Amino acid sequence: MPGTMKAVVKTRPQKGAEHIETAIPEIRPEQVLVKVRATSICGTDVHIYKWDAWSQGRIGEKKLPQTMGHEVAGEVVEVGRNVRAVKTGDYVSAETHIPCNACIQCLTGQQHICANLSILGVDCNGSFAEYIAVPEVVCWINDRKIPPEFASVQEPLGNALYAVMGEDNDVGGRTMAIIGDGPIALLAVGVARAVGVTTIFIVGKYDFNMAIAGKMGADHLLYANRSDVDRVAFVKDHTYGFGADIVLDMAGSDQALEEGFKMLRKGGRFSAFGIAASSPTTLDYNNGMVFKGSQVHGINGRKMYDTWFRVRNLLASGRLDISPVVTHMFTLEDYARGFEEMLTRPRRSAKVVLFPDRKEFEDAVRRRK
Amino acid sequence: MPGTMKAVVKTRPQKGAEHIETAIPEIRPEQVLVKVRATSICGTDVHIYKWDAWSQGRIGEKKLPQTMGHEVAGEVVEVGRNVRAVKTGDYVSAETHIPCNACIQCLTGQQHICANLSILGVDCNGSFAEYIAVPEVVCWINDRKIPPEFASVQEPLGNALYAVMGEDNDVGGRTMAIIGDGPIALLAVGVARAVGVTTIFIVGKYDFNMAIAGKMGADHLLYANRSDVDRVAFVKDHTYGFGADIVLDMAGSDQALEEGFKMLRKGGRFSAFGIAASSPTTLDYNNGMVFKGSQVHGINGRKMYDTWFRVRNLLASGRLDISPVVTHMFTLEDYARGFEEMLTRPRRSAKVVLFPDRKEFEDAVRRRK
Amino acid sequence: MPGTMKAVVKTRPQKGAEHIETAIPEIRPEQVLVKVRATSICGTDVHIYKWDAWSQGRIGEKKLPQTMGHEVAGEVVEVGRNVRAVKTGDYVSAETHIPCNACIQCLTGQQHICANLSILGVDCNGSFAEYIAVPEVVCWINDRKIPPEFASVQEPLGNALYAVMGEDNDVGGRTMAIIGDGPIALLAVGVARAVGVTTIFIVGKYDFNMAIAGKMGADHLLYANRSDVDRVAFVKDHTYGFGADIVLDMAGSDQALEEGFKMLRKGGRFSAFGIAASSPTTLDYNNGMVFKGSQVHGINGRKMYDTWFRVRNLLASGRLDISPVVTHMFTLEDYARGFEEMLTRPRRSAKVVLFPDRKEFEDAVRRRK
Amino acid sequence: MPGTMKAVVKTRPQKGAEHIETAIPEIRPEQVLVKVRATSICGTDVHIYKWDAWSQGRIGEKKLPQTMGHEVAGEVVEVGRNVRAVKTGDYVSAETHIPCNACIQCLTGQQHICANLSILGVDCNGSFAEYIAVPEVVCWINDRKIPPEFASVQEPLGNALYAVMGEDNDVGGRTMAIIGDGPIALLAVGVARAVGVTTIFIVGKYDFNMAIAGKMGADHLLYANRSDVDRVAFVKDHTYGFGADIVLDMAGSDQALEEGFKMLRKGGRFSAFGIAASSPTTLDYNNGMVFKGSQVHGINGRKMYDTWFRVRNLLASGRLDISPVVTHMFTLEDYARGFEEMLTRPRRSAKVVLFPDRKEFEDAVRRRK
Repeated sequence: MPGTMKAVVKTRPQKGAEHIETAIPEIRPEQVLVKVRATSICGTDVHIYKWDAWSQGRIGEKKLPQTMGHEVAGEVVEVGRNVRAVKTGDYVSAETHIPCNACIQCLTGQQHICANLSILGVDCNGSFAEYIAVPEVVCWINDRKIPPEFASVQEPLGNALYAVMGEDNDVGGRTMAIIGDGPIALLAVGVARAVGVTTIFIVGKYDFNMAIAGKMGADHLLYANRSDVDRVAFVKDHTYGFGADIVLDMAGSDQALEEGFKMLRKGGRFSAFGIAASSPTTLDYNNGMVFKGSQVHGINGRKMYDTWFRVRNLLASGRLDISPVVTHMFTLEDYARGFEEMLTRPRRSAKVVLFPDRKEFEDAVRRRK
Repeated sequence: MPGTMKAVVKTRPQKGAEHIETAIPEIRPEQVLVKVRATSICGTDVHIYKWDAWSQGRIGEKKLPQTMGHEVAGEVVEVGRNVRAVKTGDYVSAETHIPCNACIQCLTGQQHICANLSILGVDCNGSFAEYIAVPEVVCWINDRKIPPEFASVQEPLGNALYAVMGEDNDVGGRTMAIIGDGPIALLAVGVARAVGVTTIFIVGKYDFNMAIAGKMGADHLLYANRSDVDRVAFVKDHTYGFGADIVLDMAGSDQALEEGFKMLRKGGRFSAFGIAASSPTTLDYNNGMVFKGSQVHGINGRKMYDTWFRVRNLLASGRLDISPVVTHMFTLEDYARGFEEMLTRPRRSAKVVLFPDRKEFEDAVRRRK
Repeated sequence: MPGTMKAVVKTRPQKGAEHIETAIPEIRPEQVLVKVRATSICGTDVHIYKWDAWSQGRIGEKKLPQTMGHEVAGEVVEVGRNVRAVKTGDYVSAETHIPCNACIQCLTGQQHICANLSILGVDCNGSFAEYIAVPEVVCWINDRKIPPEFASVQEPLGNALYAVMGEDNDVGGRTMAIIGDGPIALLAVGVARAVGVTTIFIVGKYDFNMAIAGKMGADHLLYANRSDVDRVAFVKDHTYGFGADIVLDMAGSDQALEEGFKMLRKGGRFSAFGIAASSPTTLDYNNGMVFKGSQVHGINGRKMYDTWFRVRNLLASGRLDISPVVTHMFTLEDYARGFEEMLTRPRRSAKVVLFPDRKEFEDAVRRRK
Repeated sequence: MPGTMKAVVKTRPQKGAEHIETAIPEIRPEQVLVKVRATSICGTDVHIYKWDAWSQGRIGEKKLPQTMGHEVAGEVVEVGRNVRAVKTGDYVSAETHIPCNACIQCLTGQQHICANLSILGVDCNGSFAEYIAVPEVVCWINDRKIPPEFASVQEPLGNALYAVMGEDNDVGGRTMAIIGDGPIALLAVGVARAVGVTTIFIVGKYDFNMAIAGKMGADHLLYANRSDVDRVAFVKDHTYGFGADIVLDMAGSDQALEEGFKMLRKGGRFSAFGIAASSPTTLDYNNGMVFKGSQVHGINGRKMYDTWFRVRNLLASGRLDISPVVTHMFTLEDYARGFEEMLTRPRRSAKVVLFPDRKEFEDAVRRRK
């Protein structure tokens, strides 16, 4: 589609980004053009915004300028000539892991860890814009019951759901400890509650987020930064002495890994979602994994598309309400306020959603009332 | 324990039972004596009460007199000398499938379908009494948060949960059609809701029970005996055209089996819980199972003790409230009224609980208010 | 590619086919053109050859003429402009279930039972020809260690492997009864042996095939058409009294379904691969499925592409030798002899492979010596 | 049974043991008395023999004297009054993990990691004796087709099988790297081969053991202590570039953990069997587990009794021949030679079997010829 649009672009190898006029993307034959209705800020975007060591290595100066963002919901306005199932007018979101569909992972149900993975908004232009070009293979057709400010959040919600369900999906009637209180941990609380985890512990640091965890269904709020409670003993005391059936590490700190494996019951499952702060990582491999007969599962992305079906069903049915996690909404031009909210410590935000179109923004604000 | 007690005993090979004075059971070394606080009426008890063809074949005249009942909650008042873990004063319920612990099923996690299974209240004296002798191997120690009128119902609730969860436990974020509206189907609705099934269809016949299904969380009430709705088309229409991910047959009628396999989506799971009314059974094996790539799972009993842990967690946490299903409570001497409620058609009861002790009965009545 | 080629074409709605000169297929953008090195005859081809009721309904007169065949191995000689991973010169076979990649099955790892499935050689021109057009999505790149006469047989071997492994893959150290002695049953014996099934029973009718079953690794050959042995009792006697852990029905006869469910141990797995001869089908649903706690799994096709990876590994490593099953090889022009072998009863063939090129045929003959 | 017997007893808190006359054990009501036909030396026995730091902490001086040994095969000569299924004359082996059968692990199919586990020959008298008292709950009735020198080895063979099969049993047609060349690693090679692993790599150090690995079915012998080959690259080169589907760490060294996670393909399974030499342990958690989406499974013991059924089937059917691993046999009084063989480095033994009865020893020697 010819013409220009507004977009939040990483223009220079330094902190920040710019809201500028740029060309509407031309789509390749296997892509569709999506008019963005809502797009949300991920922790990855914050890394890129800060232009930290990871961003410098992963993206690099040479690829700039690049439009930021990858969590998105919008309308398809144009389809490439090789596109087969998606149609103009479809209301879509995007899986951000673009798979090659030729490696063993892609051919056996593990596209999310494709050997040749590229990532939307990291390896190519992203969604903090009026329009984004999306390969059909990562298009997900939304249920119109789900408003754009939540449809955009389906991607991190999928992370949360995959961490909660794991590969065995065995969660109904179980107990779970979630370590971390970032946005995905808060979403995980909501999923855990919706799929029948019967006792949910969250270990976090920030009052603002812990309050949201409570609203999402956590039964026990344990502060990681307080010494007046023995968190491991507390979890055991509230699980008939066994420890939690499932532990989700979504923090990655040394303390999280140490306490997480101790909280886990013998023969339990440990979702390794958090990236360890210390790498290489020192942990109690013998007691935490071997002797305990633990099942440790590394989580990177979301199952395509099993996770998306479940996420859609949970949201569209109303079984899961993620509104407490969506704490802030801004128009796209106010992106800097969004990043400011994300960067402030102690935390005072969870999920921040941006709207390129003012009317969409106003509609969303109205729905939240 | 020497002495006598009141019990509801099948004394004669004909319809009915008697509330008589009989000896308190003597326990064998591996048994415990349980003072019954609550005991509920199962469909099996109704068969025995009616002394139908099944009862005549399965139990037989020679074993009479025999105390009826097997769903129970009570206090351990005496333990045999070989009992190892259960103690006097424990608040227990009983798994009713007594396993041999020597066959391949018992030794590989399938005790519920033990090759040498005997059943409490069917192959030996049961729980419609002030006291019952229970082998330690089927004692389940209850959480005291669960009152006796619900603790007694854990056994059929376990049936329901096993049918819902199946062997793969993959239910969170799925859609499910439950065919039948008997007590276990109603409990299954509650479990499905609690463990995150996002769209629940129930197919039933009785207004009384369908209303309970609605309270337990069913999204769509479909009458089996009305011709104004195409139930199969309805399920497809409300599952994006796929059909239900999971179908539970809890009716066993020809219509249930026919419609059930049609409602199931390709590659879905079919829980075969209902005993087919016609045996041998005629069904569309090719389209329903083979071409569809279905997973059909016969359900007989409950997994020992995985199901019990989940049931306990769901009840003790308050995530699952089964009070709408417990429609009637009587003292044990009023057992005949209980059976009357169970036998009346159209149905006007779901689960009926009996209390040998009047004070327990009164406490339970008070809790329900 | 312009030009003509020889092909075995179903030209008329009656028994038979013709070996005629026809145009080399033009490929669509998402297809590749494969020069056929070997192509084998499936039971489906025999149905089409006979033009039986199934063929008349499934294909129909209006689609004729149509090139037959779908089991294939060959070299890619041309690729469409939208083809991404397959390259000219690749040595490929074809999965014959062409998925839509848009339905729930396709998006959650069940492409083989796609809601909009079309089948190579049934819904479009096939492989009994010098060239075939194949959509990239069903191209499988072969290991060159596997000669064409075996690479072509990977498709039915995949059926066999999926029936053996089921969804849970739990076969190592188990016992298995395979009912039927057609080519796929014989391949299933070989797979079962290769993946560690420790006692393999086959129930068949034909001496020729039973001898092959023995070569493929069956431990016990049980004749379905003899009354001097109680097959169910035999299986129990040789499985410590339990019955077989897994039963594969690959016959579909009333007798197969009756005996199959009886041979199965409580809690065992039943692979429903054979299409029931009687439809609707009468079987002992209560005893065979419900009370026994059976897991019945309908098999239709092969998992894409998990099955193909395993098949390749088994053949390329030499762990599985399928040469006893490939009983006949002919040049393509001798196709009628191939069908004759397939049609003769009592059976005197298992798998028949055809070669469009005489030199390929001679090379294959030489390898078999 | 009154009387005395010969036994190898740890009498003093120092290196060694003594072959002395001691009382035949008196059995408790739930135990059986087994006349030992063969008993094999485990690595644990070597630790106790050496009286190393682990033994001093785990057993301690106060419990001495204690009869050593736990791998065993023998005949039941007496049963306690509470024993239900095992009978005098049964030919048995023993699971060495004695479960409480009351904790959540025991009640949900994870008895091998019982919360209150005690271990035969570690927490009580063992099997290096003419007689041993064994609780019925850990008696395994052997198939008489399996001679005592192999039946005794079923316990470590079960370790090997559980590490190979994992919880998902998904091994047929897969590739596997086994790190370590101790006796259990060699048995794992044999199991992997028997259950259809198609490419087996072993990483070891000792020529003697590597030769046995080759006999057991390893395809590629990679020396851990040579720098002329890049083991990680080698594994990738021989698995189509993916890495091994499954990695078994049976070494526990820093190098094993580092290379093991690198050899593993994305989304693969890692069996954590080896006890890490460095504890706490430093490893590449982020790349090895999180980003790779790995499934890491701690292995401690064997599944009761699923593993035993498979082991029995593999041995009794002849599918698995472990004779290359049983490198030495001695009479019990020659126990010191057995330990000498186990302690010598470079290794010149794998599994050492002892026979209390000279005739049994001579029969075994004769069978090996």
